[in-house]
Amino acid sequence: MNLILFEKEEVTDHHVLLLDHRAKHIVKVLHSDVGDIVRVGMVGGAIGTGEIVRLEKKYPFAADLCVKLTNNAVTHPAIDLLLALPRPIMLKRIFSQATALGVGKIFITNANRVEKSFWESGILDPIEYRPHLIQGLEQAIDTRLPEIIISRHFRSFAEEKLRGIAGDYSHLLLAHPKADKSLSTCLQGKRGRVLYAIGPEGGWVDFELEKLQQSGMRVFSIGARILKVDTAVIAIHSRITQELER
Amino acid sequence: MNLILFEKEEVTDHHVLLLDHRAKHIVKVLHSDVGDIVRVGMVGGAIGTGEIVRLEKKYPFAADLCVKLTNNAVTHPAIDLLLALPRPIMLKRIFSQATALGVGKIFITNANRVEKSFWESGILDPIEYRPHLIQGLEQAIDTRLPEIIISRHFRSFAEEKLRGIAGDYSHLLLAHPKADKSLSTCLQGKRGRVLYAIGPEGGWVDFELEKLQQSGMRVFSIGARILKVDTAVIAIHSRITQELER
Repeated sequence: MNLILFEKEEVTDHHVLLLDHRAKHIVKVLHSDVGDIVRVGMVGGAIGTGEIVRLEKKYPFAADLCVKLTNNAVTHPAIDLLLALPRPIMLKRIFSQATALGVGKIFITNANRVEKSFWESGILDPIEYRPHLIQGLEQAIDTRLPEIIISRHFRSFAEEKLRGIAGDYSHLLLAHPKADKSLSTCLQGKRGRVLYAIGPEGGWVDFELEKLQQSGMRVFSIGARILKVDTAVIAIHSRITQELER
Repeated sequence: MNLILFEKEEVTDHHVLLLDHRAKHIVKVLHSDVGDIVRVGMVGGAIGTGEIVRLEKKYPFAADLCVKLTNNAVTHPAIDLLLALPRPIMLKRIFSQATALGVGKIFITNANRVEKSFWESGILDPIEYRPHLIQGLEQAIDTRLPEIIISRHFRSFAEEKLRGIAGDYSHLLLAHPKADKSLSTCLQGKRGRVLYAIGPEGGWVDFELEKLQQSGMRVFSIGARILKVDTAVIAIHSRITQELER
């Protein structure tokens, strides 16, 4: 935890009272004392400092912070992600890792090779997934939660939703081991928001590839090595960021 | 599993008899039958095809393959990795993910912020870590196991070992959020093997940074966002690969 995040609703008269794992972190990891300053941020808001004005160092831990928000958080990431619903245990990790890397939106849809049971998972409920997003923000020192957009039906996602949002992007990219073009070739020319798509384990089927391409997605390859979904999410995000920074 | 790997010792007269999870994979995931051809590879050797000549489709699963090795495996990766020993559960994942991405060697050493208990973990035993490396190869369709080199003492690693191997590399790079130079700046000029270092959670301490830099490591940054070790391993590997491919 490189940033102590709190919700707007937790602030009363410039004070935030922490009674959970955040208080424990201040005691057990930061080894802070009354009078010390810790880095804080408001979810969806600015970053700043919190002065510890009261600290209960034994269980049940408690920390009363007097907070001053000063800087705006880091720049809004220019990258969004489209996933075929991964295995729930992997999705949890992707939520926090993609948030740490910086994404604006995560779209999740269905695919032929997505196991039906994945759709019954609790992780698709905001109450379940929000803590994983928060973890990513705490890690990366950011305050801006990605937006999670779940479209259960592939066909309406590809034919309607994706066409509707295509105009928001300068590039709609789909990772495919057999594509001819490299990522840097695909990203040449104008620079704007990028949406990149990662298929399910086993890949998209031909029908899906066709539909996604008809809605404007262009296929690219990062080489012959086939990566697991969670590895690919990070690997391709980094390559896109690297290209956008040129 | 995108490749069925076997050891040299398992081959008798062009036949390999599978009695473990590999046989189960052929039955349950590939839904293969006698006469079908599956993609196989020999650990440390070539890739080829295996014809199923006998198949036991019920537990205990068994598959007798007649194998023909034809192609050499993919190119030897030009990237090696140096880690401060991570939390064992994370190290397992790094072993398979880094192997899937392609690394030649993984050096593991100590650091001030490495918890002592991590050194007691079974995962540092080849018997424990080899299956995770194999998993990475099966995923990426590769046969070449990375070499794992464990140097428990940081100081002798940084002062002796690292200096001894520095000549093998065109670039020795150390990721640090506060560095001035970008990765692409650091990688300009001659191209050869790259060794990149990822510190422990919380980072290297100043003494360690100094020692590593004295032995030739140059610091670079990939931006202000602080990543967890496993995320950073993948993110930086991808960026280096992207640069080396230019």
